[in-house]
Amino acid sequence: MKKTFLVAGGDLRFVTLADRLAECYTVYAVGFGKNVDISDRVRVIDWVTDMDLRADYIILPLPVSADGITVSTPYSGSSISLESLIPVIKDDGIVLGGMLAPDVRKLFEEKGITVEDYASREEFAVLNAVATAEGAIQVAMEELATTLSGRKVLVLGAGRIAKVLIDMLKGFHADITVAARKCSDLAWARVYGCGAVNISSMNQQLEESEVIINTIPAVILDEKKLKLISKNSLVIDLASKPGGVDFDTAGKLGIKAVWLLSLPGKVAPVTSGEVIAETVINILSERGELDDRL
Amino acid sequence: MKKTFLVAGGDLRFVTLADRLAECYTVYAVGFGKNVDISDRVRVIDWVTDMDLRADYIILPLPVSADGITVSTPYSGSSISLESLIPVIKDDGIVLGGMLAPDVRKLFEEKGITVEDYASREEFAVLNAVATAEGAIQVAMEELATTLSGRKVLVLGAGRIAKVLIDMLKGFHADITVAARKCSDLAWARVYGCGAVNISSMNQQLEESEVIINTIPAVILDEKKLKLISKNSLVIDLASKPGGVDFDTAGKLGIKAVWLLSLPGKVAPVTSGEVIAETVINILSERGELDDRL
Amino acid sequence: MKKTFLVAGGDLRFVTLADRLAECYTVYAVGFGKNVDISDRVRVIDWVTDMDLRADYIILPLPVSADGITVSTPYSGSSISLESLIPVIKDDGIVLGGMLAPDVRKLFEEKGITVEDYASREEFAVLNAVATAEGAIQVAMEELATTLSGRKVLVLGAGRIAKVLIDMLKGFHADITVAARKCSDLAWARVYGCGAVNISSMNQQLEESEVIINTIPAVILDEKKLKLISKNSLVIDLASKPGGVDFDTAGKLGIKAVWLLSLPGKVAPVTSGEVIAETVINILSERGELDDRL
Amino acid sequence: MKKTFLVAGGDLRFVTLADRLAECYTVYAVGFGKNVDISDRVRVIDWVTDMDLRADYIILPLPVSADGITVSTPYSGSSISLESLIPVIKDDGIVLGGMLAPDVRKLFEEKGITVEDYASREEFAVLNAVATAEGAIQVAMEELATTLSGRKVLVLGAGRIAKVLIDMLKGFHADITVAARKCSDLAWARVYGCGAVNISSMNQQLEESEVIINTIPAVILDEKKLKLISKNSLVIDLASKPGGVDFDTAGKLGIKAVWLLSLPGKVAPVTSGEVIAETVINILSERGELDDRL
Repeated sequence: MKKTFLVAGGDLRFVTLADRLAECYTVYAVGFGKNVDISDRVRVIDWVTDMDLRADYIILPLPVSADGITVSTPYSGSSISLESLIPVIKDDGIVLGGMLAPDVRKLFEEKGITVEDYASREEFAVLNAVATAEGAIQVAMEELATTLSGRKVLVLGAGRIAKVLIDMLKGFHADITVAARKCSDLAWARVYGCGAVNISSMNQQLEESEVIINTIPAVILDEKKLKLISKNSLVIDLASKPGGVDFDTAGKLGIKAVWLLSLPGKVAPVTSGEVIAETVINILSERGELDDRL
Repeated sequence: MKKTFLVAGGDLRFVTLADRLAECYTVYAVGFGKNVDISDRVRVIDWVTDMDLRADYIILPLPVSADGITVSTPYSGSSISLESLIPVIKDDGIVLGGMLAPDVRKLFEEKGITVEDYASREEFAVLNAVATAEGAIQVAMEELATTLSGRKVLVLGAGRIAKVLIDMLKGFHADITVAARKCSDLAWARVYGCGAVNISSMNQQLEESEVIINTIPAVILDEKKLKLISKNSLVIDLASKPGGVDFDTAGKLGIKAVWLLSLPGKVAPVTSGEVIAETVINILSERGELDDRL
Repeated sequence: MKKTFLVAGGDLRFVTLADRLAECYTVYAVGFGKNVDISDRVRVIDWVTDMDLRADYIILPLPVSADGITVSTPYSGSSISLESLIPVIKDDGIVLGGMLAPDVRKLFEEKGITVEDYASREEFAVLNAVATAEGAIQVAMEELATTLSGRKVLVLGAGRIAKVLIDMLKGFHADITVAARKCSDLAWARVYGCGAVNISSMNQQLEESEVIINTIPAVILDEKKLKLISKNSLVIDLASKPGGVDFDTAGKLGIKAVWLLSLPGKVAPVTSGEVIAETVINILSERGELDDRL
Repeated sequence: MKKTFLVAGGDLRFVTLADRLAECYTVYAVGFGKNVDISDRVRVIDWVTDMDLRADYIILPLPVSADGITVSTPYSGSSISLESLIPVIKDDGIVLGGMLAPDVRKLFEEKGITVEDYASREEFAVLNAVATAEGAIQVAMEELATTLSGRKVLVLGAGRIAKVLIDMLKGFHADITVAARKCSDLAWARVYGCGAVNISSMNQQLEESEVIINTIPAVILDEKKLKLISKNSLVIDLASKPGGVDFDTAGKLGIKAVWLLSLPGKVAPVTSGEVIAETVINILSERGELDDRL
């Protein structure tokens, strides 16, 4: 028999996710309001209590909740309390949410329900890096009065997002330098045809670069560093809070600096929803829950 | 002695051009109003008659004139008549404009002044293709709810813009097919790792593609072809007038179709101005006019 | 009714071609000896006179003939005279050969037979450029004691082979400069992310480059130029006769210089045979000869 | 005062390494024979006892020793015992070798000498992956009767070598699929524009691929898998012992299978020597040994 999912709340990503899961499974969706365009194969319900059976799995949004009490339902006027979900999931069911706070996790686990965080999976982060990198490139194109092609670009950091970004920027034949700390990161940068500089000695690169993109979640571009950057340069910060740029100082110095957060859901909600669906399937498959594939 | 240029009218591209030329030559600029930020090395004048010597070369905008009588001066309230430029250029001077109408050309040639059209040069078209391709990619990113990465893209045509576009889209690992007519164009598409299909038998590709970008200046996507395209697909037309898409029908069919014209000046005015400056230098160098380099 | 081809002589390329054509048409092959491994769908005959019907089309090798009298048959001990082919082709048949000498062409045309040279087609040249570029890269890898990745490479010329070569070298993140004469060629080089220098002022690039690849069929690298090149550099000449390098002087100067001719047939005979088959099909299709496709 | 290195034994990589280190430091070299071309700035000695001071650092080859007693000296007739090196290194000196056997390590550590293995460093592995990938591509080009461009390639594994290989093969517009086990590895493959398949269900890919390159050090291609592979396909194994292919069975089945080991020293000894030099500098710098840079 087909497994049953309840998709509770979320934005366009979760509309897509519900649709993709419904290709193979029974899917209920709650918390999406009247005006959202959901495929017919998803059973849209108004209230959690409208379900006519208990769900094997509940999918919660990313992030799950703003207040720790109700599920995020940006598309709906009515709220869904996290508590109200407990009766509609099977005793051996699984709740899958993104960036779950400890309290939310505890709420379900205390009832014996298994809780998984899809946002902590490596493949989720890898696949999402594509949308983040594209978002950065889109903003760079929008902000620059020059082409991106041929620009001197400095990328701070060498993690997943930096790697994908470099790969895309190469397609524009940008002149890329990577600033990082670890020898192996600098080696990777060179292997991919970039310049490489230790982040502790990147002053010259800061001065010369026309676009500087930070991916490191620590204030790398402080007043001292910002003063080296040309007023014509564009600074893009992709780091999660606290971010990597002293934006106040950047503003005072007249440097255009943009902080881009949570790009995947903004620039590519459909792809982002597919990524969450795929990650959820992977988690459940590894637990032996689903027969096989989506 | 340094040669003297008069840059008469134009948009941000011509501010950049004036600045670049002023690195090596004496440059006057007229028709830019008070609020335009021009570098100090350019001698900004209010009226053509403010020049204290006659120019060796006059640079006119792209396009030169909307009415055939006055120079395009989008940054200035006051107009400059084409006639008024004749007395300020040397007898053996050269006027360089973009997309010169026959009448405008005649106006100067009748006085024995040489006229050159920088927009008809091959390197101008090649270098401008970069900004056009970037503009198309920027719009694709803005319009798509998915990533551009991994998308099935159909490019109509195999000229300069198509070639540059393919090269950039490759950087996003898009799945590209080129539709063209000539065997050699289809060969080039395959050499660059794209699928290739004769434009007369591309129905399947029209149905399957998620992004369709036209570069051919003829109505390729007529009603019959548009009916094959999915409502979720994005159509971008880069062809100059009359364009390659029947937009009325596309609208009726609910297909998102965008016509992007004159992208270089819009998305990358600074680079575009540099390209014009470089082309002007090339033209003059080939005529033996300038000692050597910019 | 299926059209009939006679493939007369040639090397492994023509074995492949015969096989590909036999997917759709009736194909006889002569001049391949006993030891050549040809697919069963090709009708291998010992003598031209063994054909039981007259051919619509005869395919001759590339080049057709060394002596102007017999077909090149490197795989067979027995020779086939060009004359002997005339009786076995239909009166309105077509002979297709590669790099046809005027006398050979005349021989058939005098009998009213149409003659086409597939080697003069643009798509043939484009598709063959891939094998040529790969051959150059293979030799560069074999000769270099360093990786190709990261090398400073100077490419002389900006034609088809240069373009494909640049595209492949980019995949190795080589640091490429193109030397050419035309402004538009230099523009293309930059659009593809290469440095660009006028061939008349490339002395510095000759000194600095670790690999120099010539594609221009004229002696560009004469004694004066060779003296600028480092003894550790590798020079590869892809130009057809007379070649682009003064090899005697290179030898005296101790510079490793390699002249690579006719690469497609050597490094990728199967692909090369497929390219000839495709070109032949294109020629015949454009003449309205074949119903449609291979 | 300048630090002193003794480079003891090794092949062309260590000649290069000695030369690079000699740009900044005092370098002695022993074990290279008369016919090796070493730069003048390296002090070549015949016997370890010819040193006129004790070395700060000794560099041993990769691998250090075949017998555990003497240093590998492929370029010299005379042997150097590992024991004989102890008196010529300072009491607080450091010995750096590649793939050090426990006994060799112990020999020095018992005397209080610090021992480091440069071959265990991450940046060493990353940078060497370039030469390995190039070697695989070179062999593929040599073995294939087709172009590499456009080929269907299956890469087994998704580690460093696979990543670099994919990047290079992309430059040839090969049609690449990666077979791996981890979801995150499959995600990376897709991000880089490749197909991705779980290694447990790759039968179809084995059947269809024209080139199969293994990077996993475990016998993946056993009899059962090999039977799926076409006789026209090329199998390249880059895995260290025991290798990933049952070569006996491959031979019996008539499949061309090539096992390529230790490629960096073979195909790019100069680059490989530079990589070792750089890694040695990194190790010493991190230990605070060298003032600063090479």
